[in-house]
Amino acid sequence: MILITNDDGILAPGLAALHRELRRLDRCLVVAPDAERSAAGHSITMALPLRVQPVRRGGALFGYAVSGTPADCVKIALGAGLVKRPALVASGINLGPNTGTNILYSGTVSAATEAAMLGLPAMALSLDCFRDPDFRPAASFARRLAAQVLKRGLAPSTLLNVNVPHRAASRIRGVKVTRQGSFRFEDKFVKRRDPHGRDYYWLTGARKVHSRGADCDDRALKQGFISVTPIGYSMTDQSQVAGLKEWDFS
Amino acid sequence: MILITNDDGILAPGLAALHRELRRLDRCLVVAPDAERSAAGHSITMALPLRVQPVRRGGALFGYAVSGTPADCVKIALGAGLVKRPALVASGINLGPNTGTNILYSGTVSAATEAAMLGLPAMALSLDCFRDPDFRPAASFARRLAAQVLKRGLAPSTLLNVNVPHRAASRIRGVKVTRQGSFRFEDKFVKRRDPHGRDYYWLTGARKVHSRGADCDDRALKQGFISVTPIGYSMTDQSQVAGLKEWDFS
Repeated sequence: MILITNDDGILAPGLAALHRELRRLDRCLVVAPDAERSAAGHSITMALPLRVQPVRRGGALFGYAVSGTPADCVKIALGAGLVKRPALVASGINLGPNTGTNILYSGTVSAATEAAMLGLPAMALSLDCFRDPDFRPAASFARRLAAQVLKRGLAPSTLLNVNVPHRAASRIRGVKVTRQGSFRFEDKFVKRRDPHGRDYYWLTGARKVHSRGADCDDRALKQGFISVTPIGYSMTDQSQVAGLKEWDFS
Repeated sequence: MILITNDDGILAPGLAALHRELRRLDRCLVVAPDAERSAAGHSITMALPLRVQPVRRGGALFGYAVSGTPADCVKIALGAGLVKRPALVASGINLGPNTGTNILYSGTVSAATEAAMLGLPAMALSLDCFRDPDFRPAASFARRLAAQVLKRGLAPSTLLNVNVPHRAASRIRGVKVTRQGSFRFEDKFVKRRDPHGRDYYWLTGARKVHSRGADCDDRALKQGFISVTPIGYSMTDQSQVAGLKEWDFS
């Protein structure tokens, strides 16, 4: 059984494309947010209850729509027994890339991270495109990669963060194993006045700042390669431990 | 100038305690969520506008209440010019510890991570207590640590994740520089029926699973030490890169 989730919501075309390909490998169950939860990061819902609604397609159970975040979906899929221990958790395909420091904000990646935290093989999939997407090349790659993961397994607490360029399969230059780069947006806030005369602010990512390293996720993607990055959830900066021990904490 | 934020909301006693101590070092400005945003992780608000409301205390500007997440607060503080580049960003003091894999869910830690991503020295502070807190020993330590950070600086892209045991200052056994452990909750979901006859689920962290390593954050805390962990936001699992390059992606 493969568990499929995302952060664009259960109705998103990227999820449908992923489902179409992965069901060629194994039975699939979708447990996904009932609406878009982009930029949800690794947030979870504790102060409110969650609703879980079965969704049928063509007479069969397609999955469950959850009134929570991507990480909630993975937690509740297992914690409420919607699915037995799946062989793989696949999250996506996200509309828009998830590279560099942006993966910290990503609900798509966080769902896969949550799965890894629960000891499950997991992958997050994103397409480098924001409008008029063709998910088919990315979905096809997802199936081939999933087949490898099912065969080989993944190291405990490692998941794969996959970004696919938006171009015809024949024009994708290959696959690069990368590291998380320093790609980020330089944020701006637009300040406006609402119809009631009160100010509001709206976040907008103004300028893209790309990584310098040739082995970085955003660079590979920009050059037309599929980027595969092994990531984990250990955030200790080990290089600073020795130096900190010299500090005077008295 | 020190920027103070949190995830328990601008009215939280832990923030007030932190503010009381840090203003002995420098001018302080609070930019914090207008209500509790626990477990917000590194989520940010993109699909909705943000409201920013000035809050005055004793005739002076105390800070701004923001209708968003902890990471939003740091972004908007700088991106909307509420504060010039602060010398330090301090997040907390959180009611409840943030150790092990729980730091992924933590709004307190994510606010400090966001600050580090913006190139600012940052620290997250949490108290190992869920009710009837006395924040004073933790706040006092926060001031001493902040003084060190202001003097020495921090390595770029490193922040300090600080957890303080809930006991009298005289009974705190010292400070340990630790690594992020594997502490986690084993989730359960409670299923109930609402007054309208519809089912809902509620997340509850049933069993605590502690780390084994003696140098782990949760272990130090449990033994009565203040835990200081240097953390970053690079999530690449470098140990898996070479192996992955052998995979057949065709």
